[in-house]
Amino acid sequence: MTQSERLDRTFAALTDPTRRAILARLERDKDGASVSDLARPHAIKLPAVMKHLDILDEAGLITRTKTGRTVTVRLSPKPMREAMEWLRRYERFWSGSLDRLTLYAETKEAEARKGGK
Amino acid sequence: MTQSERLDRTFAALTDPTRRAILARLERDKDGASVSDLARPHAIKLPAVMKHLDILDEAGLITRTKTGRTVTVRLSPKPMREAMEWLRRYERFWSGSLDRLTLYAETKEAEARKGGK
Repeated sequence: MTQSERLDRTFAALTDPTRRAILARLERDKDGASVSDLARPHAIKLPAVMKHLDILDEAGLITRTKTGRTVTVRLSPKPMREAMEWLRRYERFWSGSLDRLTLYAETKEAEARKGGK
Repeated sequence: MTQSERLDRTFAALTDPTRRAILARLERDKDGASVSDLARPHAIKLPAVMKHLDILDEAGLITRTKTGRTVTVRLSPKPMREAMEWLRRYERFWSGSLDRLTLYAETKEAEARKGGK
């Protein structure tokens, strides 16, 4: 799979509030969570939760470990790192605007000082 | 629109290699690009490019300015900042793993030194 295909899959997996909430929950629970724990806060049926978990699993964002009858779901955030690296190159745009704003403020300040105001 | 809805839209807009390539191109061209400039590198027809631009526009990731018959497309990266902030909270996971790896290596090294090896 190419990097572009991985990004397609990662961004697609993140395009859903329930899936993002599941990831946020797993971010807090270092030891992982059971499927029913993950389903509880959501007003959706278990099969719908399972489908979301399948999508997250295919995107490599979670791992599922079965012990007896319990499935433990854990976060596997590596694909998010690649997505973040992709987004990072745009960072200079907003930091750039901030730099320009700072420069503007400093110039105004210098002008005001020169004018003795 | 809620932050969650904005994230849905931003991540959905990023779920396509052509759209990501258009954004990457606009990231390089500070003065923007015409629609035909943007279409050129892609083996897709102009209406398909226009559709991608509509999706990017609806997600607030580009602006389009018409001057005479030319439409200039510019990057509007603010929604990406929000997406990156969302991803950033997972950063501690990979930096955390690295810290644990460093700690492990240092412990092993200290043990080796103690053992006089």
